[in-house]
Amino acid sequence: MNSRRDFLQKLGLSALALQLAPVTNWAAGSNNTTKTYDGPLLRVAIMGLGSYGTRVAEAMRQCTKAKLVGVISGTPSKITRWQSEYNIPEKNCYNYENFDAIKDNPDIDAVYVITPNGLHHDEVIRVAKAGKHAICEKPMTVNAQQGQEMVDACKAVGVKLLVGYSMHFEPHTLEVIRMRKAGEFGKIKFFQGQCGFTIGDPNQWRLNKALSGGGSMMDIGIYAVNGSRYMTGEEPIWVTAQETKTDPVKFKEGIDQTIQFQFGFPSGAVASCLSTYDMNNLDRFFLDGDDGFAEMQPSTNYGPIQGRTNKGLLNQPITVHKTVQMDEMAEIIFHGKKPVVPVDGEEAVKDLNLIDAIYLAAKTGKRVEV
Amino acid sequence: MNSRRDFLQKLGLSALALQLAPVTNWAAGSNNTTKTYDGPLLRVAIMGLGSYGTRVAEAMRQCTKAKLVGVISGTPSKITRWQSEYNIPEKNCYNYENFDAIKDNPDIDAVYVITPNGLHHDEVIRVAKAGKHAICEKPMTVNAQQGQEMVDACKAVGVKLLVGYSMHFEPHTLEVIRMRKAGEFGKIKFFQGQCGFTIGDPNQWRLNKALSGGGSMMDIGIYAVNGSRYMTGEEPIWVTAQETKTDPVKFKEGIDQTIQFQFGFPSGAVASCLSTYDMNNLDRFFLDGDDGFAEMQPSTNYGPIQGRTNKGLLNQPITVHKTVQMDEMAEIIFHGKKPVVPVDGEEAVKDLNLIDAIYLAAKTGKRVEV
Repeated sequence: MNSRRDFLQKLGLSALALQLAPVTNWAAGSNNTTKTYDGPLLRVAIMGLGSYGTRVAEAMRQCTKAKLVGVISGTPSKITRWQSEYNIPEKNCYNYENFDAIKDNPDIDAVYVITPNGLHHDEVIRVAKAGKHAICEKPMTVNAQQGQEMVDACKAVGVKLLVGYSMHFEPHTLEVIRMRKAGEFGKIKFFQGQCGFTIGDPNQWRLNKALSGGGSMMDIGIYAVNGSRYMTGEEPIWVTAQETKTDPVKFKEGIDQTIQFQFGFPSGAVASCLSTYDMNNLDRFFLDGDDGFAEMQPSTNYGPIQGRTNKGLLNQPITVHKTVQMDEMAEIIFHGKKPVVPVDGEEAVKDLNLIDAIYLAAKTGKRVEV
Repeated sequence: MNSRRDFLQKLGLSALALQLAPVTNWAAGSNNTTKTYDGPLLRVAIMGLGSYGTRVAEAMRQCTKAKLVGVISGTPSKITRWQSEYNIPEKNCYNYENFDAIKDNPDIDAVYVITPNGLHHDEVIRVAKAGKHAICEKPMTVNAQQGQEMVDACKAVGVKLLVGYSMHFEPHTLEVIRMRKAGEFGKIKFFQGQCGFTIGDPNQWRLNKALSGGGSMMDIGIYAVNGSRYMTGEEPIWVTAQETKTDPVKFKEGIDQTIQFQFGFPSGAVASCLSTYDMNNLDRFFLDGDDGFAEMQPSTNYGPIQGRTNKGLLNQPITVHKTVQMDEMAEIIFHGKKPVVPVDGEEAVKDLNLIDAIYLAAKTGKRVEV
């Protein structure tokens, strides 16, 4: 198994395009998958043209309700390349100095912020002040306080703030959530989320605290945090955590290498999770109830997601996560659609609250009530 | 999936006999599986004729190096039944008052103690004083101090003290250990042991602190403790633990319902484990290294044990755990054979030390150095 990061790094545009060939335009929870969409297209500018931005842009080629129309980047050569690749007009291109002027651009509805975590807070608030809807990659920012400020800023000007929780639209995931809500697993007792990979280049921004806000927790660990909530359907009331660091050169102060963390839920259910930048072969969710279980492995990777329950293999469609996410976000923004699991800023603040608590518990060695 | 306890409870003698039909007399690590054994038979008396004692007795029918020849029980009707079932002479039958007289019985080599945990300490010491080898079910006793006293008592009189760690002879388990030692998984980073089942009858001895010494940890959790050690090949240096109790009527003071616990190892590897009397569908070991992994599921149940590694499915023989264990114990006692993973009293004291630390960590909420 390749690590997620390696996988990203190895993928070039052509490989990505190839991978996208068998796209299923499956919209989670939607009843109109065969109906032609006649609503307005969500016209999106992507901020941050790195590998993840490229992934989103490629996935958006298959969108029917959203369209990439603009870019924001500090690198003129990247802008030129994207203009040519995605047919983006000059008037929809911005840099980090001038993008507030997007306010006066009637051809852009939303900005998708795909920059390092530590920059999201200020950038999203600038997007909001420009009167555009903000879509922000996860983690939305580096702590709950900043997250709440972003929510408040968007609310103040009446724009939407959505977060790139693509798993919230993933069919296998949604089927497990449906089964859990229908009581098919009985009383839920346990969730396990193991998320991690071996990170490569020691000089990347993800290992720079000012840009990343933290280590594995701020990259891959958030999947286990978020998954603990949507898989169990409960909000944790306590957190314990144990950090292990064997390589303090690569993983400097404030950059977590490996954190084990546990949650307790109001029902008495518990979660056991692992977030790491130092292990391979990890991508497993396990939800256990009195009457059954669900195991997903891979559970959050670019997939394909695979899963089984006590009733057998899950046979949901394979989707390109970001294609579905962006089409669904058009429905949320324009038609007020309520996704099965929220993807708004408030949802992200809940995760950030838990990440704050995990870091505190790891540092103090004490159980943190949340 | 049935719980281990349910499975035991549902099994009658005939079902057990049926299950034993396709027995493979596979001796772990032995080179003479096809050779006829010409050493002395290990002549064993079983102390404690409950469901687990019955399991051992049935498994021993297939032994080639060990033989059930005696019983010790407080229930005369059970003795009568076992005499008839296993052809046991009157002179090899004892009760809890008179079994010290076994000292003068030249036809019994060893006593296998299969009574409630809380009784093992005194009983094993009496067996030792009677000059017989002691085989004791796990957990060997209820804390490390008592365990050390048992080791010392057996050493003082020169008898062997062996513990019923049947997984130490299980072929899939041994293959994973072999691969790990050969470096086939690379540097080991993580172990996960999830052990538990939903316990039935609230009045059973296992939920009575005086007899059990604890809850799930003293029954099923010890498999994860022990597995953490033999799977990684390291001894933990720190322990953290979190206890959850939702049913204080069934799980009284000192009887743990669910405990999550974590270990840290000298190499920087970590373990994440779960011990519970309140969940189904749990029986998984996962060993993760830089170059590969092993997943066993079921990992310690009566099986059959199933496993896979990054190289594919494990195809080791299916064995009856207690048959192999007892044949191997004959080799250990009479021929000084060294098993791949020790099964002696010192090995058990290491587990008990960790269980002591887990209970302390759960109670104080603090990391315990060991």
